[in-house]
Amino acid sequence: MADYRLYAFGESGNSYKAALMLALTGSDWERVPVDYFNGQTRTAGFRETVNEMGEAPVLLHKGRTLTQSGVILDYLAAETGQFGPRDEDERREILRWILFDNHKFTSYYATLRFLVGLQKSGESPVTAFLRGRAAGAFAIVDKHLAGRDFMVGGRPTIADISLAGYIFFDEETGMALADYPHILAWRARIAALPGWKPPYDLVPPALPARH
Amino acid sequence: MADYRLYAFGESGNSYKAALMLALTGSDWERVPVDYFNGQTRTAGFRETVNEMGEAPVLLHKGRTLTQSGVILDYLAAETGQFGPRDEDERREILRWILFDNHKFTSYYATLRFLVGLQKSGESPVTAFLRGRAAGAFAIVDKHLAGRDFMVGGRPTIADISLAGYIFFDEETGMALADYPHILAWRARIAALPGWKPPYDLVPPALPARH
Repeated sequence: MADYRLYAFGESGNSYKAALMLALTGSDWERVPVDYFNGQTRTAGFRETVNEMGEAPVLLHKGRTLTQSGVILDYLAAETGQFGPRDEDERREILRWILFDNHKFTSYYATLRFLVGLQKSGESPVTAFLRGRAAGAFAIVDKHLAGRDFMVGGRPTIADISLAGYIFFDEETGMALADYPHILAWRARIAALPGWKPPYDLVPPALPARH
Repeated sequence: MADYRLYAFGESGNSYKAALMLALTGSDWERVPVDYFNGQTRTAGFRETVNEMGEAPVLLHKGRTLTQSGVILDYLAAETGQFGPRDEDERREILRWILFDNHKFTSYYATLRFLVGLQKSGESPVTAFLRGRAAGAFAIVDKHLAGRDFMVGGRPTIADISLAGYIFFDEETGMALADYPHILAWRARIAALPGWKPPYDLVPPALPARH
């Protein structure tokens, strides 16, 4: 059995954040498939034995069960000694961006992509609302990256891996990344890191129609 | 000058989380008013000198500027030695709930309250969407609190202070807390902690029409 086991499905950018960290750190890991689109994460069994929050990813390691991508990234940084903070001030600066990612950046953008790009919901007041919120968050990250190569401390950290998770997917969202040139350049820097792979190469899609 | 300075406005539950932590820990603090409803946090000056994320709360202490309520709670737990984790496993369990709060619990509920309770937007597809998402998150926290007094470790921690922030406000949201009996009982336990005060007693409202 591999050192790390990760409950993940390909369409989940939060799963990708964890899988990408495992790949970039050269960790020995294997995937536990999650049948998200048939409701596996919402079953009583999954919630009782794997994750009461009903979400992927979930990381299993040394008897521990870790959920929330931000916690998994924090844990893997400590275990591998890579992409983590240098001191407590930097740990909080990284945490600040991971919280911003969860609250404002991924939250709206991932939900927008889920509706428009995966469910093919079409346009609605909800997608317009989410796109407006996502655009505000993208502008803040784009501005932060003007004149910086990475989000914190001049080198790639788990703050980058968290924030970048969803922007490597190519499903339609009605947003143009070309409007955020610093994000585009930063994404290319992350894609150039040794061990980087695109989402569906790291974790196969759960939807058979994907490819 | 007080030991801690907190940029905050009364209607902000995220500001309340930080202010409540300062109150519960008996810290010496003062408020820096934020004129949120006239756009202060969205000005170039605020973003350049206080918080590039354009948000309150912001904590000033010993030359540090800390933003994101989860970071402020983490910092104050370390500085005061109160409401923090006992070890690294517990630190990650607390972080897991703070991330869930930011991603799923506060995010949808706070936005719903902002639209329905403060902006008086009336019902729309967006409020219905937010209420459905908030209800799902409330059910997860309610279930976690069945048979537990507090979220982590059998005692109040910053996970509770983070998650409880918005449920002490009384503006209309179209959700009934009575549907979540374990959350209601937990809220009463938090309100019984020494030093607890309701939101607008700790931080005055920015909207003059409030009272």
